[in-house]
Amino acid sequence: MGKFLYAPEIAKLGHVALVSADLEKSLSFFRDTIGLEETEVVDGVHYLRAWGDFEHHTLSIKAGSTSYIDHIGWRTKRREDVATFAKLLEDAGTEVRWIQAGEEVAQGEAIRFELPSGHRFELYYDMEKTPADESRKSVLKNQTYKSWAKGVSPRRIDHVNLQTSHDNAEIVKYLQEALGFKLREYFVNPDDVQVASWLSVTNLVHDVAIMSTPRSKEPNEMHHIAYWLDNSQDLLRAADILCEADVQFVGPGKHGISQAMYIYVKDPGSGLRLEIFTNGYLIFEPDWEPIKWTYEEYLKNGSAYWGDRRRDDVDRDAQVKELLRS
Amino acid sequence: MGKFLYAPEIAKLGHVALVSADLEKSLSFFRDTIGLEETEVVDGVHYLRAWGDFEHHTLSIKAGSTSYIDHIGWRTKRREDVATFAKLLEDAGTEVRWIQAGEEVAQGEAIRFELPSGHRFELYYDMEKTPADESRKSVLKNQTYKSWAKGVSPRRIDHVNLQTSHDNAEIVKYLQEALGFKLREYFVNPDDVQVASWLSVTNLVHDVAIMSTPRSKEPNEMHHIAYWLDNSQDLLRAADILCEADVQFVGPGKHGISQAMYIYVKDPGSGLRLEIFTNGYLIFEPDWEPIKWTYEEYLKNGSAYWGDRRRDDVDRDAQVKELLRS
Amino acid sequence: MGKFLYAPEIAKLGHVALVSADLEKSLSFFRDTIGLEETEVVDGVHYLRAWGDFEHHTLSIKAGSTSYIDHIGWRTKRREDVATFAKLLEDAGTEVRWIQAGEEVAQGEAIRFELPSGHRFELYYDMEKTPADESRKSVLKNQTYKSWAKGVSPRRIDHVNLQTSHDNAEIVKYLQEALGFKLREYFVNPDDVQVASWLSVTNLVHDVAIMSTPRSKEPNEMHHIAYWLDNSQDLLRAADILCEADVQFVGPGKHGISQAMYIYVKDPGSGLRLEIFTNGYLIFEPDWEPIKWTYEEYLKNGSAYWGDRRRDDVDRDAQVKELLRS
Amino acid sequence: MGKFLYAPEIAKLGHVALVSADLEKSLSFFRDTIGLEETEVVDGVHYLRAWGDFEHHTLSIKAGSTSYIDHIGWRTKRREDVATFAKLLEDAGTEVRWIQAGEEVAQGEAIRFELPSGHRFELYYDMEKTPADESRKSVLKNQTYKSWAKGVSPRRIDHVNLQTSHDNAEIVKYLQEALGFKLREYFVNPDDVQVASWLSVTNLVHDVAIMSTPRSKEPNEMHHIAYWLDNSQDLLRAADILCEADVQFVGPGKHGISQAMYIYVKDPGSGLRLEIFTNGYLIFEPDWEPIKWTYEEYLKNGSAYWGDRRRDDVDRDAQVKELLRS
Repeated sequence: MGKFLYAPEIAKLGHVALVSADLEKSLSFFRDTIGLEETEVVDGVHYLRAWGDFEHHTLSIKAGSTSYIDHIGWRTKRREDVATFAKLLEDAGTEVRWIQAGEEVAQGEAIRFELPSGHRFELYYDMEKTPADESRKSVLKNQTYKSWAKGVSPRRIDHVNLQTSHDNAEIVKYLQEALGFKLREYFVNPDDVQVASWLSVTNLVHDVAIMSTPRSKEPNEMHHIAYWLDNSQDLLRAADILCEADVQFVGPGKHGISQAMYIYVKDPGSGLRLEIFTNGYLIFEPDWEPIKWTYEEYLKNGSAYWGDRRRDDVDRDAQVKELLRS
Repeated sequence: MGKFLYAPEIAKLGHVALVSADLEKSLSFFRDTIGLEETEVVDGVHYLRAWGDFEHHTLSIKAGSTSYIDHIGWRTKRREDVATFAKLLEDAGTEVRWIQAGEEVAQGEAIRFELPSGHRFELYYDMEKTPADESRKSVLKNQTYKSWAKGVSPRRIDHVNLQTSHDNAEIVKYLQEALGFKLREYFVNPDDVQVASWLSVTNLVHDVAIMSTPRSKEPNEMHHIAYWLDNSQDLLRAADILCEADVQFVGPGKHGISQAMYIYVKDPGSGLRLEIFTNGYLIFEPDWEPIKWTYEEYLKNGSAYWGDRRRDDVDRDAQVKELLRS
Repeated sequence: MGKFLYAPEIAKLGHVALVSADLEKSLSFFRDTIGLEETEVVDGVHYLRAWGDFEHHTLSIKAGSTSYIDHIGWRTKRREDVATFAKLLEDAGTEVRWIQAGEEVAQGEAIRFELPSGHRFELYYDMEKTPADESRKSVLKNQTYKSWAKGVSPRRIDHVNLQTSHDNAEIVKYLQEALGFKLREYFVNPDDVQVASWLSVTNLVHDVAIMSTPRSKEPNEMHHIAYWLDNSQDLLRAADILCEADVQFVGPGKHGISQAMYIYVKDPGSGLRLEIFTNGYLIFEPDWEPIKWTYEEYLKNGSAYWGDRRRDDVDRDAQVKELLRS
Repeated sequence: MGKFLYAPEIAKLGHVALVSADLEKSLSFFRDTIGLEETEVVDGVHYLRAWGDFEHHTLSIKAGSTSYIDHIGWRTKRREDVATFAKLLEDAGTEVRWIQAGEEVAQGEAIRFELPSGHRFELYYDMEKTPADESRKSVLKNQTYKSWAKGVSPRRIDHVNLQTSHDNAEIVKYLQEALGFKLREYFVNPDDVQVASWLSVTNLVHDVAIMSTPRSKEPNEMHHIAYWLDNSQDLLRAADILCEADVQFVGPGKHGISQAMYIYVKDPGSGLRLEIFTNGYLIFEPDWEPIKWTYEEYLKNGSAYWGDRRRDDVDRDAQVKELLRS
């Protein structure tokens, strides 16, 4: 189409690199209960992905003395965008570190940097689309592994939700201007201050959300990561599976924001919250106006349109005691 | 099969006769939002049923100065059972009143009496299985109306749940001995006293439940009536429909007892609580041992195995205020 | 309730005893692909059941030189009914053989006899409701095993469907008069002759069906056995699982008769056809009039109301060739 | 982000403009049976959309002496892209006609042109996002109409599928080079010639498909348009609705290509085929390699992975006769 000059773009959420203080518990949770497939283990790092993920991994887990998110990886639209982003970020004053090809297994060269909130992002382009081994591969040409092999069995990674004590609008501005994310929905507190925002580069309502909440002690926390199921009944099946596995969770419910249905469950190994996610709508409009929810609208419909909306930092015994009182 | 002498039996839940202080609101709720079909209106009484109900009606609604349940109708297994039940009940000291054929539209002769709790039951055998009119009838020979014509669109009536201040075990004994219901599941309070019980004559886990709870002021209240949907996603669809109709509800969730999924919603007209109900299990074992849930087991799994379990006598504004505090 | 004299009754379908010419393939199919749990193995007989079945087994499989159904077991309503049925059957000229308690593992004394078609039925009352072992038991008190542990994961056994070259009305008459089954739905051929019938003793539309079709060479064939799933999406999930397991099947579809949704799949080991079954309606009316479908009505809606209705005695290669022609 | 020069891009499928030889039948089908909402009627043109569509219309229907697709409208990414596309198309020898703002109700200025196959495309940018009227608007801020108000009730328009007698690879090349569509999946005939292709500009597996089949008499036919449902059970509900409306259809089934589940049904008014569509996967990889299906792979899994796959140009009577023979 002739000579064009493009801004660098992020194409999709790539992966989350988790460090777990209890690797075995985390593996048992993500591999068996949730049903992610393990592509391989290299130097003690377990590379996992869902049956419909194409890249080598969408979740890596390794052991650590504490549990934390090492980085969130995003794939760029073009190979050259990695370098272009590096330059633009450095020009804007952000410290950028280059990661050699192979330093992260199956991945080409990449850059890592921190958001103003301290969250660590990684941008890469090259990533091996490792085929599944014979025994696990799908009969379908357009799918990596057999579906439904074990556990909840989500199809693919969906999004990440960052929690911060940082000012929300400032992080949103950074995501928009430095990285090209588009604001899709957000809500404000009673003082009309933006406190949580949903942004995407894809047609999903969000690839990344950023929530500034009173509960955030640190600027660079993770609220949750999310994997996607195709159907609502599969979410209810997930609820049964989690109950049988004696894992506490919140949900099912449906958000007003994104209209997606959810279950929130914490990995017993690392404490990382996982959102099991389905339904919702897609955004195709090129001139999408961000939808603003007032705090009242958010409480009424935006957060939990219907369904279970309990706090999940309350343990089951306490919940039973609470019911005992009513 | 030769000469046999049978005990009279109840075959199924027949119908609920509702009196509503706001008939128009109740009709709007049951007919449009829930999607029950109206068979006919006679003398101001609206006779409704679900698209998969075969009898003339499973819910009748008429106007009244207050809202209450006039009676719950049960169909007997044999025509002669109505008279046999009448005799047995009278012999046991229960006052029995005969209802002439036609006094309740489309119904044959019947008897009415009160449980020790004061709940009024009706036993009948003959009931017209009124076909649907041409424009609404299903293309299927084994179905009355077209399905999915409007609203939530449940298939059929499912059960009734009675609330009482009366002693639970006493009412259960009456239901078992006088009427032949079988106890399926029950739970006890912290003092090991039976407080809520689920009983049936059919393969359903319950056709009738009786709950003795602190909140019962009267001996003969109705906790809810229930209509059945075939699939879990139809329950979630119902949640959307109720939200769009601006009707408050509790759910979706799944009970441990019965394993059924639920939404509880109140008819804005009469205040009668409706449970929209799906899934669960059936009981075929002839020697079924009633399952006892301790109070702790009930709180943990029996009541709400997963899902939304909020109190529904709290209005939406109050719930928003509660969330504002957290 | 005083002195009553009851006819013996069948309460429910108990189990199917399968002999397989390829035991390992059958076990792989039923245990892994379908996801039945194995209670135990005794003397080479594998006793299987679904996670929501309560009795010791609903499907037993053992090796044989050929594949066939040894017997279909039905549970009676009362312990004494076994002997009463034995007497009534013998009085009517049927040869009855007594099975000692324990001859079939976990089962009390029983009788076996043949229908006029040659199908072998067994009637028993006592059957151990074996709890699941710690690692597999459900967290729910009213459920045997954890659900969703593997494969398609149906909840329980549902029905059997017998195929015969015998006259259909004659077998139906026998089932009604000798065993108390009630005719629910049936269809006739173009000459108005009854050719297939659905009967039950429970609220299910059928516990047993009997089909007299041109394809029956023998009088005592099995068309299929069926296991039940709770939701339609679980049936579609089953379709994916079967495809990934490279097992041919017909469906999904929905029958007009019973209104249930189906997949038909053959056990690669024995060739026994399994119907994976969900939805449909229940019959509570004590005076249910059998629904007659003309042959035209049956072809239009009765057999396949919607969905896949191909013949399943055509292999995949042949089907591909057929599509190649169109 | 500095100075960049972009190629014009198509952002999404906008709408289909249908001319129907029986307007009333088409309106009854699309508005009542399928459940699209009517935004308004202007000069005899009915502007329809699904409850989750944001633009003024996604389907317009007007009366004509014959039934045909007047044009397919696509929204560009930037306002200036309309003019840029016009220039690039004209430079390549395509005749481009300008449409004044308002000539199509609620739409800004646009261009129309024909593909080499003769299919007429329209490119626009400005389109009013008409809010719904008070009585029909959703309680959700991010949704236009109340969901589930009537009929099948799909959420949004999904894709179009063009049929042609033209060479497939040539049309694909045009779509790629002139309009920026990316090839996602395709299959070849036994001679390894590309005959059907699925392309998109969004994350959907396809926004447009082009099928060159023996049955195409004309170069510019429409195979189908598609609307999207969120859940598989809603597709099965659609099957019931269509049966009750006595409308013939093919499905449900699941495609291997796209992995989406489908029902194909023809509008009785115009004969236009509608695909009711759900599930499937999304493509986020920027370097997606088009997946090639050999003809054998296509027949085995690509077309109908499972489910009903009958030809839909055979009427019901003929199908009944066919079943009569088997």
